[in-house]
Amino acid sequence: MPDLSLAKGADALLMLGDSERIADLFYATGFRAPDPFHYIATPDRAWVLVKDLELDRARQQVRDAEVLPLRCYEAARHQQGDNAAPGGVIADVLRELDLHSLQVPAYFPVATADDLRNAGFEITVVGSPLFPNRVIKTEAEVEAISNSLAAAESAMSVAIDAIRSAEIRDNLLVLGGEPLTSEAVRRLIHHTLLESDCRADHTIVAGGEQAIDPHQDGHGPLPAHAPIIVDIFPCSALTGYYGDITRTVVRGTASVTARELYDSVAAAQAFALETVADGVDGRLVHEGVSQHFVDAGYKTGEKDGRMQGYFHGTGHGLGLEIHEAPFMSRRCDPLRTGQVVTIEPGLYYAGIGGVRIEDVVVIENGGCRNLTSFPEVFEL
Amino acid sequence: MPDLSLAKGADALLMLGDSERIADLFYATGFRAPDPFHYIATPDRAWVLVKDLELDRARQQVRDAEVLPLRCYEAARHQQGDNAAPGGVIADVLRELDLHSLQVPAYFPVATADDLRNAGFEITVVGSPLFPNRVIKTEAEVEAISNSLAAAESAMSVAIDAIRSAEIRDNLLVLGGEPLTSEAVRRLIHHTLLESDCRADHTIVAGGEQAIDPHQDGHGPLPAHAPIIVDIFPCSALTGYYGDITRTVVRGTASVTARELYDSVAAAQAFALETVADGVDGRLVHEGVSQHFVDAGYKTGEKDGRMQGYFHGTGHGLGLEIHEAPFMSRRCDPLRTGQVVTIEPGLYYAGIGGVRIEDVVVIENGGCRNLTSFPEVFEL
Repeated sequence: MPDLSLAKGADALLMLGDSERIADLFYATGFRAPDPFHYIATPDRAWVLVKDLELDRARQQVRDAEVLPLRCYEAARHQQGDNAAPGGVIADVLRELDLHSLQVPAYFPVATADDLRNAGFEITVVGSPLFPNRVIKTEAEVEAISNSLAAAESAMSVAIDAIRSAEIRDNLLVLGGEPLTSEAVRRLIHHTLLESDCRADHTIVAGGEQAIDPHQDGHGPLPAHAPIIVDIFPCSALTGYYGDITRTVVRGTASVTARELYDSVAAAQAFALETVADGVDGRLVHEGVSQHFVDAGYKTGEKDGRMQGYFHGTGHGLGLEIHEAPFMSRRCDPLRTGQVVTIEPGLYYAGIGGVRIEDVVVIENGGCRNLTSFPEVFEL
Repeated sequence: MPDLSLAKGADALLMLGDSERIADLFYATGFRAPDPFHYIATPDRAWVLVKDLELDRARQQVRDAEVLPLRCYEAARHQQGDNAAPGGVIADVLRELDLHSLQVPAYFPVATADDLRNAGFEITVVGSPLFPNRVIKTEAEVEAISNSLAAAESAMSVAIDAIRSAEIRDNLLVLGGEPLTSEAVRRLIHHTLLESDCRADHTIVAGGEQAIDPHQDGHGPLPAHAPIIVDIFPCSALTGYYGDITRTVVRGTASVTARELYDSVAAAQAFALETVADGVDGRLVHEGVSQHFVDAGYKTGEKDGRMQGYFHGTGHGLGLEIHEAPFMSRRCDPLRTGQVVTIEPGLYYAGIGGVRIEDVVVIENGGCRNLTSFPEVFEL
């Protein structure tokens, strides 16, 4: 059972959704289902309500919960016809279990909440984290994240080898006689990830001016002599856990300003790596990194209609979601032993380019352990 | 602008979520974002509220809506301190736009709905489909689905070639001296899909008794002389649209009962392909397929603790989601010209195996057009 802290007066936790998209549901049940199902948990018992199509797999995969076939409750309602009680099938199940006051996560669907309230149930919304222990990774979870990270590092190696091997013609990269494009490097990365049963969406291979937008995937021929950001964040099809790594490289010769950008980001990352530890406030780490850039003369703000400088967080928790608590940003999240977080400062300026360096660490007492072993490389 | 029908008295539609997971949001905005954002739409104007990290891409990608920087509203609230009005930043935006009665989709997060209600806003939940026209595909959408389907067909071809090429040793498949496993065939499929910038989760390559569970991915050495279900449903990273195809093959000689199963499923699919057309009720198609199996003597129900027979729907809409309206199942969904649906009857029995055949069609006046060109093959 996941650690369940019920609000005062609540009989049970109620969740609804598909566990492919709602990580809390997968965390609670160990059951990966593409279609929505209900999950009900009291401090000592739990249930999942699934349709026939999922029944077999639910019985095999669901941890610490009884599997109830939706069909039986639907059939009973069908028999009752117009006499069926309000609130739908889930209300019938809750009444049978004698559960009347439910707590639900913030993202619980309002339609179902309204239906249950109208049927006489009490619904209390609880904030995140829904399961406080999800933020603290077990050894098995750290290993799963490390495996996905290792897959990402293999893919990074293949990507950087391709960029390193490219010739330079007219300030563009050429490999095997063809322009080396963001798309081509991305495919190399994705093929490599598949060998570890990992898949990635929105892998970033963005060079030159494209890299100024931190979430730009990148497209077209890659430039020489300009920073190229490669950001790979695969999810393992076997475990569901993510890895995450970013490197910024230049094929050819970086400009002096690009090199300075890189050195400042690398120094900021080193500062963050030295600062994070159990008990440290994530916001203070982010403010320290931001101040580092201010002190180095790098300004942040909107310029010529686009954001420039340092305008994303310093890091985020990593696990069953690519972005999860804790966050090292403007919000206040305390760092704790066993959390796994990225550390990824970056700077982005039109005319110079974008630079981001990202490692993944486990927070420990008095410091952190870096799970990333891929070297820092810049000019190739 | 998507087709927006506001409930009586509602000023605007309000949505909240990340458009990677909420297809309605991507459909409405054309903006693919991994982090949650707000979308507000009146019949003639619309807005998205995004954080700095997404600002640039939002300005490039968002269709038919103004992009509002979240930062400005956060800064204003910060200045007001304890005097800030209730309901959070989104309430501030709605007040500024003079919108007080909102309609929200069924899946809107209950926490935000409660906050807005407590701040004096009226929240009305509207059922699906949120955008009725999303169910009817444009020519461009049919083309996008066809492209993803073509990628799936290429991958199917590679998978079936591998199974066909396998030798048979001790009733197991062997290729290149190694056991041919579900995992190996799945990797071949995924590598092939990457060549079309498509990716797939939970691709099914399940043989023998594993195939009796329709959602079982499949693992381990593949059997000879027994049905192997291959179900590929990739999403295009370029367009966001899905393809979907299933074939069932036997390497070696199928048993008489497995061949009968295959023939009955093929006949049921042919019946469904002849039956679907504009104006037909999807439930009736499903009931016809179910009756076909009953008439052929195939029973459906729980046996020895697992579901057997025909216990999933006959088909589902396909588009930005792998399962979307309309559904041909026990629920009543009318079929309409321009809908794209799968047609995928199947039968599953312990001791015989599983058989499913799936094509994708566009509903037309008086019939349908099959978008799938991959041949029906069985024994290899």
